[in-house]
Amino acid sequence: MKAVVNIYLKEGVLDSQGKAVHHALDSLGFGESVADVRIGRQIVLKLNSKTEAEAREETTKMCEELLANTVIEDYDIEISNV
Amino acid sequence: MKAVVNIYLKEGVLDSQGKAVHHALDSLGFGESVADVRIGRQIVLKLNSKTEAEAREETTKMCEELLANTVIEDYDIEISNV
Repeated sequence: MKAVVNIYLKEGVLDSQGKAVHHALDSLGFGESVADVRIGRQIVLKLNSKTEAEAREETTKMCEELLANTVIEDYDIEISNV
Repeated sequence: MKAVVNIYLKEGVLDSQGKAVHHALDSLGFGESVADVRIGRQIVLKLNSKTEAEAREETTKMCEELLANTVIEDYDIEISNV
């Protein structure tokens, strides 16, 4: 099983990295095309779980315990059978 | 238009951050469930482009010029109309 976890800052939390990249894109001449930039992490896990439900449960536990900082971050999990 | 850019290390490039997270998951008791961990970035852009083709073209330019380090990283782009 493969789990893809996308972790991103909650709405309203200042994304300073995104602001910096937005500014850099401005300097490179993309100012007119870009309205906003947000930056998150994508974690790809190869799991030994047998079922999709088990994989999702394990991945959720990992997110809560280590991968995401749930005070300021949200996450979503996609499980696929590859 | 919204563009989601996933940037990840090419196959064969050592992912030290992924190794560290794998090790941390081992320590937390997830050792049996996790076979591999890879960590990438997810960049979400709000674009002023009018068409999907234009949005994809602009985003590809941004990736090549700033967002991705194409020597060691690959990227994929998803455009949606939101």
